[in-house]
Amino acid sequence: MRRITKLRTPIHFDSWAAVGGYEERRGPLGEKFDFCDISDKFGQSTWEIAEAEMGRVALNTALSKSGMSHDRIELLVAGDLQNQCVASSTGLSSFGIPFLGVYGACSTCTESLMTLCSFIDSSEHMTIGAAVTTSHNSAAERQFRTPIEYGGQRAPTAQWTSTAAGAFILGRGEGEVQITEYMPGRIVDGSTSDGANMGGAMAFAAFDSLQAYFEESGEEIRNFDCIVTGDLGKVGSDILRELLAKSISGAERIHTDCGLLLYDFKKQDVHSGASGCGTSASVLACHFLPMLKEGKIRNILFMSTGALMSPSSLLQGENIYGIAPLIRIENMKGSE
Amino acid sequence: MRRITKLRTPIHFDSWAAVGGYEERRGPLGEKFDFCDISDKFGQSTWEIAEAEMGRVALNTALSKSGMSHDRIELLVAGDLQNQCVASSTGLSSFGIPFLGVYGACSTCTESLMTLCSFIDSSEHMTIGAAVTTSHNSAAERQFRTPIEYGGQRAPTAQWTSTAAGAFILGRGEGEVQITEYMPGRIVDGSTSDGANMGGAMAFAAFDSLQAYFEESGEEIRNFDCIVTGDLGKVGSDILRELLAKSISGAERIHTDCGLLLYDFKKQDVHSGASGCGTSASVLACHFLPMLKEGKIRNILFMSTGALMSPSSLLQGENIYGIAPLIRIENMKGSE
Repeated sequence: MRRITKLRTPIHFDSWAAVGGYEERRGPLGEKFDFCDISDKFGQSTWEIAEAEMGRVALNTALSKSGMSHDRIELLVAGDLQNQCVASSTGLSSFGIPFLGVYGACSTCTESLMTLCSFIDSSEHMTIGAAVTTSHNSAAERQFRTPIEYGGQRAPTAQWTSTAAGAFILGRGEGEVQITEYMPGRIVDGSTSDGANMGGAMAFAAFDSLQAYFEESGEEIRNFDCIVTGDLGKVGSDILRELLAKSISGAERIHTDCGLLLYDFKKQDVHSGASGCGTSASVLACHFLPMLKEGKIRNILFMSTGALMSPSSLLQGENIYGIAPLIRIENMKGSE
Repeated sequence: MRRITKLRTPIHFDSWAAVGGYEERRGPLGEKFDFCDISDKFGQSTWEIAEAEMGRVALNTALSKSGMSHDRIELLVAGDLQNQCVASSTGLSSFGIPFLGVYGACSTCTESLMTLCSFIDSSEHMTIGAAVTTSHNSAAERQFRTPIEYGGQRAPTAQWTSTAAGAFILGRGEGEVQITEYMPGRIVDGSTSDGANMGGAMAFAAFDSLQAYFEESGEEIRNFDCIVTGDLGKVGSDILRELLAKSISGAERIHTDCGLLLYDFKKQDVHSGASGCGTSASVLACHFLPMLKEGKIRNILFMSTGALMSPSSLLQGENIYGIAPLIRIENMKGSE
């Protein structure tokens, strides 16, 4: 079965924005964010509504950078980690843009970009769409684990959910930076039900996608500048690199993970690294897309990685399942 | 802004299946379901895992009816109402099919069919995909409200979450029954934060979509046999019909709602009617698609309706937002 779709219609990144909170500002990418609120509150009274506001700020910032009004956007694809994805739906409702909610846990950024590409390609009249992904540390902590005030001890394999958002405006037609291929991920059993080791659980899904991609495409590793995963963190990245070294030799050397890039492991107490779907969304927006635009890198595989589970499913003894949808992003200008 | 997409690539319903529980079997459509488990448990030990199993049964039944093995399916688009959509992701993981999770509350059935259409159309090699939607009364009650054992009194405007699943196999190419158009919905403020009146909240979104559809398409009401909404129930359907009578005259007479069709209001204590994303999915599969195939009806607008909210968002004073993505389904054989 073929799984990779090469986009017939060229689709480019028109603009993008990264928004973060306190820890994101303190991290090594802090100055690259378009906007950070070090109170993490974005002027709102609850963490949940703060996350919704963060998504609005991200979309408005991307719109502002593109010089476009929101009523040009024909479809908005968005998702987050809150139950029933309310940060996206209630948060972005005021724009009045036709909306599609997706849920892929921390794979949401890639899933939403891929879905938007397929709609732009399929719909003859659609020329501009937006994708927004958010996560908020304090909203996630009390929903998935315990309220922060409880002071629960975190395991060394645990990750730090980022307070971060990424917004992307995609346009039909050629541009400097384009999405050229996509490949939906398969659901892969992470072989653990340890909710404090989601990076480890997701590594197998990332490997499954890469194996399928290189087998089907026949591409060589040297054609890529990096292979980017979403939020495997230290534990998951180590597992993935070990698997890659054995079967897709060379891939392990160009692998990098957004969960390893967002924070400073010496200064910030983030254990195995960053997680949350805002991680890959914001790192794509503030780090990889600018590098692609400037031609510092020219060709990447980008896979946000999702841990498909719920607090209830873990209590009921289910394993964590991983998923890693993949897109290929390229700088389309000839080499200089 | 144009919102309606006419599918360039013909996409047909290859097969479909409806699976339900005890109340669904007792209802007026009971005998049309492919499979009902009157224990609601589907051989599982928890309601949540029962829902996952119900989705598997639905997909397997649709596969069996099409005479197809699961490894022919190139993309599976699925969603449910459980937190983090785990009924779909853990439930359908064992098929090993590339997966896309969507969240549209009770609009999931239409959202997933529309998304699948766009992927089949966009991806040159993709010829067959599946969409699965589930909801389970007992899983939903304890997640959104209180455990059933608590015996909470239900308001007259409240609806009964169906224990039901719908699975659909879509194929590229012409067929007897095709999806010919789709239109994503906008998020519309339901002007209430009453979680016991979601039908009323969603009615405005259904009206918004119909108004946009008829304005853009210039279609006449007499070209349609029915306009089907997902789960507005009695309260929401009354509101919608009143709005339609004022501005899309005639539409109110061909409106029908899956939430009004699934149960017998005299025999079954379902208050304002059925809800849950399995409602429109199962009623499409066991009622409308067979009628379309047999030529009893030839042309319908089908809109699953979703209430975008979470228990937390309601407690935090947010309104309920509605969304009503729309697809047009037609019998493609000439009139006999």
